[in-house]
Amino acid sequence: MLDGFFTPKNVALIGASSTKGKIGYEIFRNILKSNIKVYPINPKRKKILGRKCYKDIREIEDEIDLAVIAIDAKKCIDELEKCGEKGIRRIVIISGGFKEVGNKELEEKLVEIAKKYGIRIIGPNCIGVFNGKNKFNTFFQKNMELPSYGKVAILTQSGTFGIALLEKLASEGIGVSKFVSYGNKADINEIDLIKFLERDKETEIIAMYIEEVGRKFFEIRHKKPIIVLKAGRNELGQKAAALHTGAMATNYEIFKGICKQKNIIYADDFEEFFGIIKILATNGFPKGNKLAIITNGAGPSVLACDFLGDSRNIELADIIDLTGSATADDFLNAIDECNADIILLTFVFQDAPLAESLDKLYDGLAKRERFYLALTLGGRFVERQKRKLLKLKIPVFEEPRNVINCIDKIVEIK
Amino acid sequence: MLDGFFTPKNVALIGASSTKGKIGYEIFRNILKSNIKVYPINPKRKKILGRKCYKDIREIEDEIDLAVIAIDAKKCIDELEKCGEKGIRRIVIISGGFKEVGNKELEEKLVEIAKKYGIRIIGPNCIGVFNGKNKFNTFFQKNMELPSYGKVAILTQSGTFGIALLEKLASEGIGVSKFVSYGNKADINEIDLIKFLERDKETEIIAMYIEEVGRKFFEIRHKKPIIVLKAGRNELGQKAAALHTGAMATNYEIFKGICKQKNIIYADDFEEFFGIIKILATNGFPKGNKLAIITNGAGPSVLACDFLGDSRNIELADIIDLTGSATADDFLNAIDECNADIILLTFVFQDAPLAESLDKLYDGLAKRERFYLALTLGGRFVERQKRKLLKLKIPVFEEPRNVINCIDKIVEIK
Repeated sequence: MLDGFFTPKNVALIGASSTKGKIGYEIFRNILKSNIKVYPINPKRKKILGRKCYKDIREIEDEIDLAVIAIDAKKCIDELEKCGEKGIRRIVIISGGFKEVGNKELEEKLVEIAKKYGIRIIGPNCIGVFNGKNKFNTFFQKNMELPSYGKVAILTQSGTFGIALLEKLASEGIGVSKFVSYGNKADINEIDLIKFLERDKETEIIAMYIEEVGRKFFEIRHKKPIIVLKAGRNELGQKAAALHTGAMATNYEIFKGICKQKNIIYADDFEEFFGIIKILATNGFPKGNKLAIITNGAGPSVLACDFLGDSRNIELADIIDLTGSATADDFLNAIDECNADIILLTFVFQDAPLAESLDKLYDGLAKRERFYLALTLGGRFVERQKRKLLKLKIPVFEEPRNVINCIDKIVEIK
Repeated sequence: MLDGFFTPKNVALIGASSTKGKIGYEIFRNILKSNIKVYPINPKRKKILGRKCYKDIREIEDEIDLAVIAIDAKKCIDELEKCGEKGIRRIVIISGGFKEVGNKELEEKLVEIAKKYGIRIIGPNCIGVFNGKNKFNTFFQKNMELPSYGKVAILTQSGTFGIALLEKLASEGIGVSKFVSYGNKADINEIDLIKFLERDKETEIIAMYIEEVGRKFFEIRHKKPIIVLKAGRNELGQKAAALHTGAMATNYEIFKGICKQKNIIYADDFEEFFGIIKILATNGFPKGNKLAIITNGAGPSVLACDFLGDSRNIELADIIDLTGSATADDFLNAIDECNADIILLTFVFQDAPLAESLDKLYDGLAKRERFYLALTLGGRFVERQKRKLLKLKIPVFEEPRNVINCIDKIVEIK
């Protein structure tokens, strides 16, 4: 059922606009770009972007698979009724102005009408959905870089955070299967979505940004790895979160305890969240917990050892310092002689001879199928290196503490 | 006295080479680039890079201000004697092969000869010095990007780490006054250097990467802010450090305690180290501890509030969520209406209207002299933004926990 939110045969956009920059215009344009048939609905327009515009959704002859509503909150009730009469079963309500600003009753009314007609709702007050495979999305952003198609599903309670996260995933070449910004979750909530993603063949990893969770979160059953970034951990954060979700607080210690019980990874901060997603998306799980460091300079590798000393799950198998005169062959030979499950390649500023043999290094890394992590420290020189490593699907980190903590948490839930 | 290491009237390079790629060649080239008169010494060559080459340092008529030695460890003793006879008072010994590989006696011999002649030595087994003002350096790196001239002095026990750090500082536009990679510190150690930098008018901030410290570290007196990144905190890290310094261990808890007593900032990790350097270099100290968040999206700001909730020294004055439709004027008005000592500008992916008014925003920020920190989340869009903010000398962060911890530690020592 929820599948239809991502692969609709067609879409009706209530609140489509002919004015560039308006939410209703940008959503329309974005859906058009994905080549899915979309019917604009706006009583004041005859055409939008060359397409026939309808006054009322009930005028459309075809059966409509999915409706997207982007109009004033007060008008949503009527439009919802019309959708119900039309027989629409799935609706994304982008519009804000409901529980998050104190309009609890308006939101309850939405749910009531949805139940009456058997409609499932994502939202309100959300950014909606994105399908990495067919690129269908309900976004109103104009110029964003969408990620490629891949195995990571994203669920987010904050729309703007979700969009920024997608852009960062795109910039690092991490592919996405499905994305849902679920807003006020008046109907469909994160639990429904997790159940759906567990069955979704295209999703292998589930990553969630949440500010509060209902009691049902504690009953989650899952086989796929789930990584959660929970914000609103103390009074100050919860006040900030309440500004936009109108949500209730959850004790963070209890939350972490439940996650541990349920083999869900909780990220201490954003970098850990993103780092774990990166590693799972590029490498999956390592076969074991033995990690070797192969480096061309001290500093980052010494710090990495410090953090490994505190690690609960990772064992340092070996540290091979090839020194600053390391060549590509030195790295490749060290890799071949090394039995470790996880190889942490650590690069400080590389001058000749490594600089001159970088292409050889990359070819060599690609030919050897190992569980690689990369740690780089430097300026523009390593920036270039980072881009090439990302192309080889080798996750790149700048902070020793972060890469060690990420792999530690991954091995913990293995 | 130590000043002469950075502003020598002339330099003699023992071990200069005519072979591209060799350490002795690259050091020679780098010193030539800084336009300081340099005499190459190599018994096997008559000329190097068009300059007359000497067999023996004693052949040079002029008084030599500074010698740089880059030859086999075993030959250093004789060359040191010759330098002594010549009356040279300052020497940088790049060469490795001393205490760090077990040759304790060879290193003690160096010190003995130096004392005999009244010579001060930096090294051995180091990368030497860099002067941000005149760009003089003893580096053997070929293609590195040197930072601009500024107020941050760097002391490092690891040469490769130091070079990588300089490149990162260069890439973020943070200027450097002086840099010393002091290697095995057979003679001049970090304490001598701190004393020197305390008196150095060009230095306002002292940043140090250390793997072990002598007892004298605990007697440091300083007025300028000192930030330390200590590696080799536990057994695993200390083993890794010993690989290249041959150094002894220091209990990290004791170390942190001493730092607290002496108002020295210790960084928990590399990002904190770099972040604190960035903030002090661009902004200095804030007048007070009240921080306001001005943002165009939730997520990072909620997380920032969580970390502020745990902060010991920073007080959240206000959080102003301008939402995703924020324009440059919205940000600037919010800044003008805000009294906080510290302003944390938080940007998530920005589409129109902010995208179209970014130049206006930057002009407005430049005109308003406030203590700005920036937190950005996104992909290539914010990468571009980051570059422009750096030009305005506004330090940019990606991780909420990091920016909050950095400003917290800065306010703590104020």
